Amino acid sequence: MNVQAKPAAVTTGPIAGSRKIYTAAPGRPDIAVPFREIDLHPSANEPPLRLYDTSGPYTDPAAPIDLDAGAAAVRAAWIAGRGLAAVPPRVVRPEDNGFVPADKLVAPCPAARTVRAAGPGQPVTQLEFARAGIVTEEMIYVAHRENLGRAEMPAGAPDRRADGEDFGAAIPEFVTAEFVRQEIAAGRAIIPANINHPELEPTIIGRNFLVKINANIGNSAVTSSAAEEVEKMVWAIRWGADTVMDLSTGRNIHNIRSWILRNAPVPIGTVPIYQALEKVGGDPDKLDWAVFRDTLIEQAEQGVDYFTIHAGVRLAHVPLTARRVTGIVSRGGSIMARWCLAHHRESFLYERFDEICDIMRKYDVSFSLGDGLRPGCIADANDAAQFAELETLGELTKIAWDKGCQVMIEGPGHVPMHKIKVNMDKQLRECGEAPFYTLGPLTTDIAPGYDHITSAIGAAMIGWFGTAMLCYVTPKEHLGLPNRDDVKTGVITYRIAAHAADLAKGHPAARLRDDAISRARFEFRWEDQFNLGLDPDTARQFHDETLPKEAHKVAHFCSMCGPKFCSMKITQDIRADAARMAGMEQMSETFREHGSALYVPEAATATAEP
Amino acid sequence: MNVQAKPAAVTTGPIAGSRKIYTAAPGRPDIAVPFREIDLHPSANEPPLRLYDTSGPYTDPAAPIDLDAGAAAVRAAWIAGRGLAAVPPRVVRPEDNGFVPADKLVAPCPAARTVRAAGPGQPVTQLEFARAGIVTEEMIYVAHRENLGRAEMPAGAPDRRADGEDFGAAIPEFVTAEFVRQEIAAGRAIIPANINHPELEPTIIGRNFLVKINANIGNSAVTSSAAEEVEKMVWAIRWGADTVMDLSTGRNIHNIRSWILRNAPVPIGTVPIYQALEKVGGDPDKLDWAVFRDTLIEQAEQGVDYFTIHAGVRLAHVPLTARRVTGIVSRGGSIMARWCLAHHRESFLYERFDEICDIMRKYDVSFSLGDGLRPGCIADANDAAQFAELETLGELTKIAWDKGCQVMIEGPGHVPMHKIKVNMDKQLRECGEAPFYTLGPLTTDIAPGYDHITSAIGAAMIGWFGTAMLCYVTPKEHLGLPNRDDVKTGVITYRIAAHAADLAKGHPAARLRDDAISRARFEFRWEDQFNLGLDPDTARQFHDETLPKEAHKVAHFCSMCGPKFCSMKITQDIRADAARMAGMEQMSETFREHGSALYVPEAATATAEP
Repeated sequence: MNVQAKPAAVTTGPIAGSRKIYTAAPGRPDIAVPFREIDLHPSANEPPLRLYDTSGPYTDPAAPIDLDAGAAAVRAAWIAGRGLAAVPPRVVRPEDNGFVPADKLVAPCPAARTVRAAGPGQPVTQLEFARAGIVTEEMIYVAHRENLGRAEMPAGAPDRRADGEDFGAAIPEFVTAEFVRQEIAAGRAIIPANINHPELEPTIIGRNFLVKINANIGNSAVTSSAAEEVEKMVWAIRWGADTVMDLSTGRNIHNIRSWILRNAPVPIGTVPIYQALEKVGGDPDKLDWAVFRDTLIEQAEQGVDYFTIHAGVRLAHVPLTARRVTGIVSRGGSIMARWCLAHHRESFLYERFDEICDIMRKYDVSFSLGDGLRPGCIADANDAAQFAELETLGELTKIAWDKGCQVMIEGPGHVPMHKIKVNMDKQLRECGEAPFYTLGPLTTDIAPGYDHITSAIGAAMIGWFGTAMLCYVTPKEHLGLPNRDDVKTGVITYRIAAHAADLAKGHPAARLRDDAISRARFEFRWEDQFNLGLDPDTARQFHDETLPKEAHKVAHFCSMCGPKFCSMKITQDIRADAARMAGMEQMSETFREHGSALYVPEAATATAEP
Repeated sequence: MNVQAKPAAVTTGPIAGSRKIYTAAPGRPDIAVPFREIDLHPSANEPPLRLYDTSGPYTDPAAPIDLDAGAAAVRAAWIAGRGLAAVPPRVVRPEDNGFVPADKLVAPCPAARTVRAAGPGQPVTQLEFARAGIVTEEMIYVAHRENLGRAEMPAGAPDRRADGEDFGAAIPEFVTAEFVRQEIAAGRAIIPANINHPELEPTIIGRNFLVKINANIGNSAVTSSAAEEVEKMVWAIRWGADTVMDLSTGRNIHNIRSWILRNAPVPIGTVPIYQALEKVGGDPDKLDWAVFRDTLIEQAEQGVDYFTIHAGVRLAHVPLTARRVTGIVSRGGSIMARWCLAHHRESFLYERFDEICDIMRKYDVSFSLGDGLRPGCIADANDAAQFAELETLGELTKIAWDKGCQVMIEGPGHVPMHKIKVNMDKQLRECGEAPFYTLGPLTTDIAPGYDHITSAIGAAMIGWFGTAMLCYVTPKEHLGLPNRDDVKTGVITYRIAAHAADLAKGHPAARLRDDAISRARFEFRWEDQFNLGLDPDTARQFHDETLPKEAHKVAHFCSMCGPKFCSMKITQDIRADAARMAGMEQMSETFREHGSALYVPEAATATAEP
């Protein structure tokens, strides 16, 4: 890998048919929030449709892309204003990069950033600010972002409350920065935003906001060099990943991570136990608090925004997995279970949880409390081990909150449809409404190769019920490492699940996009239909496979039915015919009053009306 | 197309890793029902897993495949025993094949079959037999099929009632032929089985049985010759389509249909109005009862098992679509709406409904009452037009039942998640629990190119709520004609949705496959995992992309984590370690009683227990 090979190394340029824009938050010209806008065909007579945009500078032709320099530090001034001391950075050690020989060492990203940490008692986390009544720039930013840049609720927007079932959530018509502050203060939402990640374009994760999705990237000990990791991140956010977890292991991970972080406009999550395990040669029994603590500091200084911490895997829970069909399927969970049994003592993550909080607070690294005992198959769903851990996560949530840390909770896994809602309900109850972050869940085990789909069903449902962020699953789940196409498929699939959830919850702006694409479809504006979709390239390609000619993109029919059979064409003709009559609504009334009597044969009427 | 080019023209051979078997229904050695069995690795120490099999003779290496002769007429003796008179077949007319010139005429399938029809008052439909207390061979067949060939409920099978939510369905632990008869007599299930389709391997469609899926095939006026239609059917059932609808239009459709029917082991459905429209030159205004009636008889004599009849599109309903975003999106619905408005009179399908019943009864063609006014976008879901039509379909259901006809009801379409259940509830109420047969529904409009996924979410949910059959959607929906890969993707996706629904409903045998694959996964039986999946070829290919070596298929780790990080490997090690202790269950108790006191530091305990 030559990560120094700059712009050409990552995918840049606008998403087909859309334009990057920035709009300033109300009253804050210094806070510019990115969106995409799609211009529609003039015949539509509609304003451009504005979309939430996760893709960072890479889709902005005007933005300089220089991986050496890192992405623009949009948060630098905000962070600098908080009086947080620069600290001497921890010295990088050979084990941080997996003891890689000098000739195989990937150089770290040269972008210079000051490493900061809060002093004892000094407010630093979004939760601490929120509780103190302080509205941060991050809160202003995410409020404007959630509103799609609207300064106020537009007239004529669909009334959320009239059309949606939110299961007790409280999604506002319009998101104010003060509402964001209240949600964070209550622990119902988080803004993962390490103070050492100034390149971050903040996003909010919580039940009363748009449902978010995470994409996992990472190399593997068996295959793949670290070569494509930066591009993987850029590729995942291009298609809509709100956050990215770097699950890399092995050589060069410290330095590769520096490239990812310095160029990531989205929150980056990690599972520090993976790197800690590398440092002790891969033997879980050799893990200890010292190496884990060191790894937390190492990654926090680099700017990782959230850590998965499997502190809920307690010694007493491990035997509950004995009769499971698939045992423990979480890597972190199995590492800790192994450690507990080998030493026959309580997990050091659990024992040291307050110290972990103290470290994470200093940098505002958010907790993602890991579900190390999540079910790995339908048979194990909602079992004693899973729920015992969830109860422990509830206990740990309260400790972390008391320490000032932001928290979200990881969830399953593999769950059949009828057992999904109880997961959500129990999580809300046990964890005091801390945001839920679930993997799928997969609703059946019988489709290896299609687990993006088995899990999209469960993800859409649990998103509807209240899950704040959905971790994607790719078609390669259970089988192999996702390639570029798999990552894209996983991200698009999860954008579908998240959006279906937003629609069902009654998010006030979610339907605007559905309605725009439906109008385009009805009016045979093919280019608009492609561009308004989640994946314009694939939509266009699919269309062109059957009707490749450019002329067909303005044709008033499509390949499925052809000109004679096109229902939309016929409907348009019907409307034209009907226009000469007094009005369709009136006609309906007339027909209803008199129609049956005129036209229905006696026999049918007699039989039909019991 | 050279449909005479026999075996090579269609895909044959077993599905990877499985074996075709036939088992006789209890006490009826003459009724042999097909299944697939998958042999597992000897280390599993498990019997072969038996699966429901829709693929017909094409996956049976022992079955002679001769498209000219047609598939084996498994129902011939049953039908012959019912005293139904042979009738002189209707003479094929030029318009039946779209006035195709002689040199372009595809010859009809030469397989000779007697055309039969019931006389007035002579019982012929499965409904009439069921009401008369007669258990037909078809009922015995489907009962054995639903039981996966079990002669009785196996000991140790999961208890359905303990684990599932069926929303008022009544799924038995074991399906008897008498139960099938009762369900059909009550109108809650149908066996689409035209007496002129003796090649059919009967299947049952109803809420208290396994959820079924339909795949659409068909040429198009714009592209594709009729060339691939027989292979398309064979391909669709290979991957799990329970029924196939032939939506062809244009030239040669009568003769192509003869090839499909004579070689189809699954029920074939059509939309007769499409062919009727062809016969009048494509102008909806020229349609009339005479041409429609003639088309019904033509197709019924050929053996079509169910007809979509859009008799619920009444004149008075059409204006209700005036304010819709996408108007009328059903082809049949728009044709009839256009006819009603052009003539300014009630639909002839509605007016002549009793005569349609009389014709369909004579051959036992089942009704699929079409939802011509289904919503075509999220904005139009559950609107007045849709529900007015559904109420009319309820009225027509009762007429058809009175006439002795089997009935199912078509449903939407495009519906956001929170509006799905009301569709199911209303359908059950309005239509007296007649089986519901839905297209998706799509839960968002924003993903052209991925509508198999947007709709799988809705399909799984509505299947769980009680829909009996799900009509597939392919990735090409809204964009173009599905190719071979798209058909396979659509079928596999819908098998996922149907199976997820079966699991959630608590079908007694559904989880056997999930559990078998989960055990294989945990024990690193890679070949078993591939073979037990819905698509062994794709699973194997995905695995081999990362770990191509044969040796890796017995490796005790996978490419995602590698040997050091494999959670399942670690779990197995944990179990081995734990085996030397007194027993995991006991350990858990011990830890729970004493663990905390021993290991939790004072501080953490104090904070943790509020």
